[in-house]
Amino acid sequence: MLIILKESATDAQIDHVVERVEGLGLATHLSRGTYRTVIGVIGDEDKLQAIGPEAIPGVAKVVPVMPAYKLASREAHPQPTIVEVGSGKAVTKVGGGHLGMIAGPCAIESAERLDEIAGEIKKAGANILRGGAYKPRTSPYAFQGLGEEGLKILREIGDKHGLPVVTEAIDPRHVELIAEYTDMIQLGARNMQNFVLLTEVGKTHKPVLMKRGMAATVKDLLMSAEYVIANGTTDVVLCERGVKGFDNACRNMLDVAAVPQVHQMSHLPIIVDPSHATGRPELIPACALAGLAAGADGIHIEVHNCPEEAMSDGPQALLPNQYAELMEQLKKVALAIGKTI
Amino acid sequence: MLIILKESATDAQIDHVVERVEGLGLATHLSRGTYRTVIGVIGDEDKLQAIGPEAIPGVAKVVPVMPAYKLASREAHPQPTIVEVGSGKAVTKVGGGHLGMIAGPCAIESAERLDEIAGEIKKAGANILRGGAYKPRTSPYAFQGLGEEGLKILREIGDKHGLPVVTEAIDPRHVELIAEYTDMIQLGARNMQNFVLLTEVGKTHKPVLMKRGMAATVKDLLMSAEYVIANGTTDVVLCERGVKGFDNACRNMLDVAAVPQVHQMSHLPIIVDPSHATGRPELIPACALAGLAAGADGIHIEVHNCPEEAMSDGPQALLPNQYAELMEQLKKVALAIGKTI
Amino acid sequence: MLIILKESATDAQIDHVVERVEGLGLATHLSRGTYRTVIGVIGDEDKLQAIGPEAIPGVAKVVPVMPAYKLASREAHPQPTIVEVGSGKAVTKVGGGHLGMIAGPCAIESAERLDEIAGEIKKAGANILRGGAYKPRTSPYAFQGLGEEGLKILREIGDKHGLPVVTEAIDPRHVELIAEYTDMIQLGARNMQNFVLLTEVGKTHKPVLMKRGMAATVKDLLMSAEYVIANGTTDVVLCERGVKGFDNACRNMLDVAAVPQVHQMSHLPIIVDPSHATGRPELIPACALAGLAAGADGIHIEVHNCPEEAMSDGPQALLPNQYAELMEQLKKVALAIGKTI
Amino acid sequence: MLIILKESATDAQIDHVVERVEGLGLATHLSRGTYRTVIGVIGDEDKLQAIGPEAIPGVAKVVPVMPAYKLASREAHPQPTIVEVGSGKAVTKVGGGHLGMIAGPCAIESAERLDEIAGEIKKAGANILRGGAYKPRTSPYAFQGLGEEGLKILREIGDKHGLPVVTEAIDPRHVELIAEYTDMIQLGARNMQNFVLLTEVGKTHKPVLMKRGMAATVKDLLMSAEYVIANGTTDVVLCERGVKGFDNACRNMLDVAAVPQVHQMSHLPIIVDPSHATGRPELIPACALAGLAAGADGIHIEVHNCPEEAMSDGPQALLPNQYAELMEQLKKVALAIGKTI
Repeated sequence: MLIILKESATDAQIDHVVERVEGLGLATHLSRGTYRTVIGVIGDEDKLQAIGPEAIPGVAKVVPVMPAYKLASREAHPQPTIVEVGSGKAVTKVGGGHLGMIAGPCAIESAERLDEIAGEIKKAGANILRGGAYKPRTSPYAFQGLGEEGLKILREIGDKHGLPVVTEAIDPRHVELIAEYTDMIQLGARNMQNFVLLTEVGKTHKPVLMKRGMAATVKDLLMSAEYVIANGTTDVVLCERGVKGFDNACRNMLDVAAVPQVHQMSHLPIIVDPSHATGRPELIPACALAGLAAGADGIHIEVHNCPEEAMSDGPQALLPNQYAELMEQLKKVALAIGKTI
Repeated sequence: MLIILKESATDAQIDHVVERVEGLGLATHLSRGTYRTVIGVIGDEDKLQAIGPEAIPGVAKVVPVMPAYKLASREAHPQPTIVEVGSGKAVTKVGGGHLGMIAGPCAIESAERLDEIAGEIKKAGANILRGGAYKPRTSPYAFQGLGEEGLKILREIGDKHGLPVVTEAIDPRHVELIAEYTDMIQLGARNMQNFVLLTEVGKTHKPVLMKRGMAATVKDLLMSAEYVIANGTTDVVLCERGVKGFDNACRNMLDVAAVPQVHQMSHLPIIVDPSHATGRPELIPACALAGLAAGADGIHIEVHNCPEEAMSDGPQALLPNQYAELMEQLKKVALAIGKTI
Repeated sequence: MLIILKESATDAQIDHVVERVEGLGLATHLSRGTYRTVIGVIGDEDKLQAIGPEAIPGVAKVVPVMPAYKLASREAHPQPTIVEVGSGKAVTKVGGGHLGMIAGPCAIESAERLDEIAGEIKKAGANILRGGAYKPRTSPYAFQGLGEEGLKILREIGDKHGLPVVTEAIDPRHVELIAEYTDMIQLGARNMQNFVLLTEVGKTHKPVLMKRGMAATVKDLLMSAEYVIANGTTDVVLCERGVKGFDNACRNMLDVAAVPQVHQMSHLPIIVDPSHATGRPELIPACALAGLAAGADGIHIEVHNCPEEAMSDGPQALLPNQYAELMEQLKKVALAIGKTI
Repeated sequence: MLIILKESATDAQIDHVVERVEGLGLATHLSRGTYRTVIGVIGDEDKLQAIGPEAIPGVAKVVPVMPAYKLASREAHPQPTIVEVGSGKAVTKVGGGHLGMIAGPCAIESAERLDEIAGEIKKAGANILRGGAYKPRTSPYAFQGLGEEGLKILREIGDKHGLPVVTEAIDPRHVELIAEYTDMIQLGARNMQNFVLLTEVGKTHKPVLMKRGMAATVKDLLMSAEYVIANGTTDVVLCERGVKGFDNACRNMLDVAAVPQVHQMSHLPIIVDPSHATGRPELIPACALAGLAAGADGIHIEVHNCPEEAMSDGPQALLPNQYAELMEQLKKVALAIGKTI
């Protein structure tokens, strides 16, 4: 860590900063420039970060040198993490060249409907089934999900089709229940910094699908992954699903550069979700192909066999035949970059 | 609600849309333009909104006419809501011309420290004491708050100085406990769309301080207020505390225009928090004055008597004497616009 | 166009709006809903747009139905435009399945250096050579380009290697000169709404490479293309090169969804520039592949054989061997989606 | 400037960096930390900035210590600049406690209309008259301004009412002409980085009103001011007029914190333009008051006596009586903060 002092910093202030830093068991290295003095900190900079050195009088700016996300960092773990989702015959690997193709409806509406959709996506090549049992809805008057009944349906249909299943947790009090029924727990974009929930989910030791928050930087995303890992689960699959931008023609803006950034900064796999990123079915195929070509470790797509009757997010779902067609294109691009769906 | 059809919409599709709408007990009014057909919907448009009409084949775009936040809307409640925080002798009104001047440290660290700070801010004119007992920290390694011990300290010090108290809830399992100890419950920016938490907080019937999420539009903020109100508490004070912008010189970007927007769209009071909006003490006074002049129903400031030793967010806190000086300026501007601190 | 009236609109105001609209030779269609009255406008809505109907008393909101960019719209011109850049033996087609692979240094520094770079990129498969003779620099103290001398070098080297050439215009007084020396004129991101420059460039009837502004929506980009087309040149190639986002880890945020959006809204080709979008060489390959997979009609890359000595933007340039390696990957992905580089 | 090396940097690379830096006549100071080596650069860091040290092999990151805008910086010029606009009896000072109250229509439409508006705003307390003769319009089909005829009208009406006048330049070829007719030249938001135009305007030695670009940081704004100053005019008044945000309820987002930031970083005055920042007349008064309370050196408001008939931006104009009412409020707030309108 580098501590850059104010031009106006007095010698007494500089001495005080050095004293504070050395008091934490760290060494310092003073460098006086033409305009500014800089203190280089040698040793474990976390100790210093914890006390917020920006507040020490005379300090102008602090430049961290090491990432604050340690367990999630590539430096800590040079090999890519391969997350295994599911058990028995239905195991899907994500990361390190393995592609997780997640698909399914926004919300679980009934066993019949989910069964039909699961059959279609399985045939098209999906290898993880998604479906929401607890829905975070912006309106208190909207459909909130089937709850435990939905979890049962999801488990049953997943098993029937040999697909591991993932569903979103939104309440720390339901996390254990969800862990019983599913193979992977999703942390939604609106809960990426719900640290209470992150902690509970981490404790289950289940694989996690962590969606990037709409106002989160890539570094914020890795800090949230750090939360989960620090609580027990290293099996975290990150998901780029669009962030807030100024062009409201799309629901969000897909930040495709997050894919190579995560691969550079972290060992965790990252997949792309063009359904939430765009909110517009006609843009989903191009964005799915872009994500895969950028090196994503999987693609997450919402599929519904009757969007008009969907109880949540129908307007952004692909039809099963549209999904199958997209999967054919994805398979070709995967081959072109040396991967297999 | 207006349903604009695609240029390519067939007569059969148009008929189907009309059928779907009328099937919900609503009336329609068809208007064929040179290029597009538009269906005006007459009746309670919530019924239609609930089914997501964008997914019906042939529909290009849906234009809502009424706000989706009903209970929070100015139309539903033309008079400004005045929220009363506290009880007995220590009651502070916020809204309708009354100013809530909230101040205190980011985190409650000890009874002694909070006592000193509370004495200083009370003297300067603050009328609500804040302090965090449960802290949402982006790093799992950072100080997480004193928990119930902190709540006890907050209650004790608030009572000693005759100041109602507010603290943040981050876990639905702690909400009842927090409601016992405090006069107002804060919902933080990162939890503005934590609907599980919103629901629990709403059920306590305590006044709520709801901070705007970093990626939330003003409409999103009102939708979250709607959640709380629909669960039981109308006493919601909104708080503009900066949103994500592209200029990282500040932590966030204070959206001061949110103040007149909320006053136009809703009956709820809105205060401004320049501490979190800027993250830089030297910018806080100007932004506090701006918020007040824009019509805010109060100002929220973090104050600490030794920022260097603060266990959270020290670098952005004002010193007690800086706060007192700012309050003198705020009092003058308040008078100029016909209000009193 | 739909004109939605305020709830408070009086009958006299409604009559006045109808009068204004019909006074422009347009027909109206009145629809009274439960809460709001809507006036549908039948006829050429440009006439109405020109007068700014939002300002007429009683009007709440105006919803346009037709795009304001007419000449650039897909509706006006269903077939994709194929832009031909260059003449004689060195002609490159862009659009309609043809890929424009533009590469070269940020600034033209000398004939020798450009010659070396041009040889390398040509060998790797590039088909248009870029190089700046007039540089828009954010600092008045930075290298501003070689001017006409640079244009001569660019022409000479382009001819030597059989590559059509493109360079940026920043001054309306130089546009004619640039048109003499080059095959395509670039309008930079900072000048996307420099309407004076757009007009002059349009008049030359040369093909145009129009970069999206950092704060421009896709619609804004098409409106700027409309400016050029309305002044004489239909041969406009658009370029997505990143927009402002809140995550400053990258210089800009590549909006890859702009590619399918432009293809849906317009007949103009659109290419992707990952060099300016990311500003970080290690992210460029993934973003180039993403752009191509999303359907872009070409890729624009800055290449320099000694970035350390580059007089502008060296830190973001690829080395010739890195470019060649990327081109091999791009060729495979192009084949996978049915195109050829 | 601090140069932070990559963890992987070899000794040979470190030596090479030191050599490059010292070759520019600068001194270096090496600091080897636990994880990273840092080179402190002592001397005029511009020389180093000019060569783009990020591109030197082994360099991870460069941290500038001094601002790149020298002439515009507060460090270079500790006293606030007071810009004098106009001559003879009609001189308005802006900055250093003096408030520039700029008002007028978006476009000059006729002498009669401008005369009426000028009379009204003068009576209300405005001290600079604005009006556009050359309009940068996003549509090629919209009214483009009266040109030189408009300049004549502006001069005549300004003189009649004793108001200095300001108008926007959009074409470098018109700058001299505009300088003849007006007292201050405006550089619009879309042209803030039109460096050709900045250069021409700087050469006239006329006072400049420089609007912040929609995607410009405060630092970018100061860099553009540097351009103008480096070309001859120190009399630059900056203007915050809203930047791009994700909440499209307003045209832009007023960044009120830019006011204290500019005052801290620079000696130049900064005014606030709530008309363009919000685009909604009902939000303008609150935002004008906020800007003034934040310390702005003036307020810029668009006023029109018949918005419905305005040829440009009518929907966002205040009526003269609304402006007069706002000015009464502004006068009270100005007094409260020790200033006078």
